Amino acid sequence: MNELRREPVTGCWIITYLDRIPEVKDFKIESNEKKGEATCPFCWGREDQTPPEILVHRKYGPPNSPGWSLRAVSNKFPALRIEGELNKEGVGVFDMMNGIGAHEVIIEAPEHKRDAADLTYAEAEQVIWAYVSRSIDLRRDKRFKYILIFKNYGKIAGASLEHGHSQLIALPIVPKRVQEELEGAATYYNYKERCVFCDMIREERDEKERIVYEDEKVIAFCPYVSRFPYEVWIMPKKHASDLTGLDRDTVPSVARALRDSLLRIKKYLGDPAYNFIVHTSPINGREREDYHWHIEIMPKLVKVAGFEWGSGFYINPVPPDIAAKNLLSVKLEEK
Amino acid sequence: MNELRREPVTGCWIITYLDRIPEVKDFKIESNEKKGEATCPFCWGREDQTPPEILVHRKYGPPNSPGWSLRAVSNKFPALRIEGELNKEGVGVFDMMNGIGAHEVIIEAPEHKRDAADLTYAEAEQVIWAYVSRSIDLRRDKRFKYILIFKNYGKIAGASLEHGHSQLIALPIVPKRVQEELEGAATYYNYKERCVFCDMIREERDEKERIVYEDEKVIAFCPYVSRFPYEVWIMPKKHASDLTGLDRDTVPSVARALRDSLLRIKKYLGDPAYNFIVHTSPINGREREDYHWHIEIMPKLVKVAGFEWGSGFYINPVPPDIAAKNLLSVKLEEK
Repeated sequence: MNELRREPVTGCWIITYLDRIPEVKDFKIESNEKKGEATCPFCWGREDQTPPEILVHRKYGPPNSPGWSLRAVSNKFPALRIEGELNKEGVGVFDMMNGIGAHEVIIEAPEHKRDAADLTYAEAEQVIWAYVSRSIDLRRDKRFKYILIFKNYGKIAGASLEHGHSQLIALPIVPKRVQEELEGAATYYNYKERCVFCDMIREERDEKERIVYEDEKVIAFCPYVSRFPYEVWIMPKKHASDLTGLDRDTVPSVARALRDSLLRIKKYLGDPAYNFIVHTSPINGREREDYHWHIEIMPKLVKVAGFEWGSGFYINPVPPDIAAKNLLSVKLEEK
Repeated sequence: MNELRREPVTGCWIITYLDRIPEVKDFKIESNEKKGEATCPFCWGREDQTPPEILVHRKYGPPNSPGWSLRAVSNKFPALRIEGELNKEGVGVFDMMNGIGAHEVIIEAPEHKRDAADLTYAEAEQVIWAYVSRSIDLRRDKRFKYILIFKNYGKIAGASLEHGHSQLIALPIVPKRVQEELEGAATYYNYKERCVFCDMIREERDEKERIVYEDEKVIAFCPYVSRFPYEVWIMPKKHASDLTGLDRDTVPSVARALRDSLLRIKKYLGDPAYNFIVHTSPINGREREDYHWHIEIMPKLVKVAGFEWGSGFYINPVPPDIAAKNLLSVKLEEK
């Protein structure tokens, strides 16, 4: 019999299959081979095809020329623009405002084919630092309420350019999905006076079965309430509600947990598309006891169909303890 | 400048592009040509490959043999099973219950290649009646709290079998997505003492620009707050919170609005994958003044990526008034 599991933060239910568990070959994973190097605007030598760099890790050369190892630029075709006023207004029953925001791209490495899973630990640390420092900078703009950091890898996960990159969108409102998570976490905290994510970490550590990475500072696991097969969550062990408060000692652990988890997914599942999303607090300057920043990696192995859209349920055909065991079976060389 | 629009029921924000509007060719629509007729378990003559029929419209022949024009059967590989007890229990911070429910399939026509968009009006009426009568029957089971009816068309929309079919899942809980919609509609009602969907209909009728079907009983429109390009909502004009209260006079209008909308989408966009979902009240026997049943059609033209997953925002590159104008440009022969 399948099991219904309730995710304690947002309250969505997950149908977890306990029999008929698919193998890797059953997922029909599309190739994510990168073929567009010849015209890629994110490669060395084509720096003039992007807006100028906002942040750069550079070994040599002048700005906006080759020699960099990481580069952050504005999105050339932004969903939201930084210039202008919000001008909130009502339109009948609807509300409307101008599309103000910031939309940046963090190019993770100069080589076209080396993606987040292939970075060295040192390079992965650079990426995490870029998330932190771009967030700190954008927080100064008083129009913004939330900074969302995410990565789309592979066409079916929504990546429109192949070259490895993450995105950062600063929003003039706290988005619904974040609001839901904050409210769920606050409800739990008000009832139990404990952070729900800290409780989840304790439980995952007690059970041990779903952990895919652990060191002194950080843990990564396939959560008991995984919505998707091979989903992995990465969390700092010490309570912290905001990515921008990340301390120097924890960054290497976050980088390792993320790089290793992505590499295990790539090797075990044969390079599937995925999204990962940094879940962090809204911009309001206070450290919250009821929320815990973390990263959620969601491999795109199954389609989201009418049932999921209509209900907010998810159907996960791979129990997370099996997923963790499979991911751990991959041998990794350190780098 | 792009516009941010707020959907007044669930409160999600939509980034509506007002320039750089993509044309049909920009969407790279995958072929949904049907090639699997030779082994299709939903075709005439293979009735023994599905569980026995629960509901059937039959021109001739004994049960579970050819001669039918519509057939409802249990799903052979159900996400939830009808036998057993719920056995709710806590597992640490999590909640769990057995996967109890009903999962049925409504096979819309006997021909393998004729799908919902290709039905005659009379056949489309049969489909709507099947939704109503299966819902009425399943409501008697006291374990169920909600009945979700939806259709996945095309592989990328999650259809695993080609032969035209809708699905019906009876759930032991009111799902999160429905709960959100009910709460949003109730909040609006408590404030304004009017149904938010009735207000939306009034507004769409005043503006006229986004209507793709209208008769005395039913309206279909590309909502001002479309999350997806070429999204169409179908609503009874007279307030009614529940599909099962649908009266005999309104069924033909619902059937026409649905068939015509699907056919316009198929013809204008070149047969894209889509989902449609029937949004209706939970099972609890009372007619609600604050909720309005309707159908939402969501063509799958863009990928849902990290930004949407992380925020609950949507990016819609086609303004709904343009979508409606394009859909209306399709010439339909009545049938």
